[in-house]
Amino acid sequence: MSELPEPVLIVGTGLLGTSLGLALRRRGVDVRLADRNREHLRTATGLGAGHAHRGEPVGLVVVAVPPDHIASEIARVLADTDALVTDVGSVKTAPVHLLEGLDGKGRYAGGHPMAGSERSGPLAAAATLFDGRPWAVTPHPGSSLAATGAVEALATTAGASVVRLTPEEHDEAVARISHLPHLLSALVAGRLADAPVDHLALSGQGVRDVTRVAGGDPAMWQQIVTANATAVTGLLTQVRDQLDVLIRAVSTGNRGLLGEILERGVAGTRAIPGKHGGPSRPTASVFVSLPDHPGELARLFADAGASGVNIEDVHIDHDPARETGLVELVVEETRADHLQASLESRGWQAHA
Amino acid sequence: MSELPEPVLIVGTGLLGTSLGLALRRRGVDVRLADRNREHLRTATGLGAGHAHRGEPVGLVVVAVPPDHIASEIARVLADTDALVTDVGSVKTAPVHLLEGLDGKGRYAGGHPMAGSERSGPLAAAATLFDGRPWAVTPHPGSSLAATGAVEALATTAGASVVRLTPEEHDEAVARISHLPHLLSALVAGRLADAPVDHLALSGQGVRDVTRVAGGDPAMWQQIVTANATAVTGLLTQVRDQLDVLIRAVSTGNRGLLGEILERGVAGTRAIPGKHGGPSRPTASVFVSLPDHPGELARLFADAGASGVNIEDVHIDHDPARETGLVELVVEETRADHLQASLESRGWQAHA
Repeated sequence: MSELPEPVLIVGTGLLGTSLGLALRRRGVDVRLADRNREHLRTATGLGAGHAHRGEPVGLVVVAVPPDHIASEIARVLADTDALVTDVGSVKTAPVHLLEGLDGKGRYAGGHPMAGSERSGPLAAAATLFDGRPWAVTPHPGSSLAATGAVEALATTAGASVVRLTPEEHDEAVARISHLPHLLSALVAGRLADAPVDHLALSGQGVRDVTRVAGGDPAMWQQIVTANATAVTGLLTQVRDQLDVLIRAVSTGNRGLLGEILERGVAGTRAIPGKHGGPSRPTASVFVSLPDHPGELARLFADAGASGVNIEDVHIDHDPARETGLVELVVEETRADHLQASLESRGWQAHA
Repeated sequence: MSELPEPVLIVGTGLLGTSLGLALRRRGVDVRLADRNREHLRTATGLGAGHAHRGEPVGLVVVAVPPDHIASEIARVLADTDALVTDVGSVKTAPVHLLEGLDGKGRYAGGHPMAGSERSGPLAAAATLFDGRPWAVTPHPGSSLAATGAVEALATTAGASVVRLTPEEHDEAVARISHLPHLLSALVAGRLADAPVDHLALSGQGVRDVTRVAGGDPAMWQQIVTANATAVTGLLTQVRDQLDVLIRAVSTGNRGLLGEILERGVAGTRAIPGKHGGPSRPTASVFVSLPDHPGELARLFADAGASGVNIEDVHIDHDPARETGLVELVVEETRADHLQASLESRGWQAHA
């Protein structure tokens, strides 16, 4: 692992830039901040994300400006300094194309932390934003080892886990695991917008899960999707072809064809890596009925903790009529029976 | 509210039938059970779901047999007895069409509890299965008031909340809030099946949520979707039209058109009723870093409980590298700041 070249200069003190400053300061890194927006800069330094940059030499520059200005800012920094350079933009091939033929482009290696928030600006920043998140590190063929190593050290120091990809691989990957799911979620949610209210009363956890991301900021997603138009269009076209097959299967009652599509979906859910990064382990759910009070939830988790079973995920489904709820505890499949028995022995009504 | 006519005879002692017996017995209802499968019947009576039916007169018959046999079983019961009749099948127009012109069809009113499990058979049954779930009650134009009232009493006694719909409304509703989300989720998941492993390493909570339901049993979903082919095909065709617009918007960089589709998705997520059945209240998330041990989760919920803020939903995102995790607590928007401050005062690292 390379060392992080200090000081680190962060250009742009919005949500990501300020959060990065806070995350690095937590580990004692020497951080300098720059922003044309004087108020953002003052807020970020006031929060303790770093000191205002006075033109002194730095080891690594992190470009954290809005998407439309990233490439020109990288080029400017490469021309004006001898520092290594990276950025935190969500699309990685476009900047590389714009740097083509530029002196010093070997000092640049791209990066993309898979972290964010529905809020923006330095006041929404948090030192913990990158904890446990993947951080794509995307060197281009001309990136120096020093540049790539510096970005990896940056990601790790900020609390994230490095995933190394080429810029092209990265853009294809985020199209598949982020942009496509978002757009299809929006299409499903769009069909709910004009549904009668009493039809929607039947909604369960399934439709809530499928459509949750569609609630994200349309202005931001507009920019993200258009910046990655080629990869996104390719995947959308594949989905349209599959959708045509699906419509034919359902309308003609072709159960075999429908089954193939459903089986492929099951295979896809199994391909997502386990939350611990290892292979996906089979999980099972234990459902527990509880009164809808804060204290009951705490008591449930205390009892679940006492069972020694690690909770992988949780869903809460409230009873519309009676102010009580059902809690779904997702655990490793082999531990579900033990958890259920343990909870029942402590007086909970549980089922698998 | 009508009284539940007793005894209640449940025909079919699989997961739903046996669970219903257990739920009714909890409230002291006189339950009789019947099943051609002698072993299932023995298991269900052994679990305490009711007594084996010996041909004695009953007040209400609940048909809980597999989908392909529901309509013929309803017709047989109407012909053989004077009892009121309902069923628990997931598609409601088909049985009504098959009863057309039949004597006694006024004694039938359909029902559909929005509850289930990935497991099947009486051993997977639970008295709590219907707690807090919607139960669609779907009388046809000829259903007697007595029949409809009996189904509503059945649903309420089992712990569910009644949602009254016509059979046609019901089938359109479940196509929209269950079958369509499932199929689109399967298409998104299908695109993951052939993705390179290191692309999938960037997966976050978003793609996990969108694709979760696609992991469901393909054989079961095949039957459900084909039984509701007309409504499902109609919605799939609408989605294909929207998908064509979306592809055009992305490939030509038409941000306005893309924005309209995304805005419509946001409107759809807001149309889903709040978990308490009232209008959807705006929520906000507080993210908390914690070590990935059962005890820490219990401590977090105890501290969250002490803050007095009601937790609406929870997501857990584990750090692949360091065996620690991020917990997302979803609360009413106006309570998020208080929760965050309260948790921070107790030593948690939290951000909004």
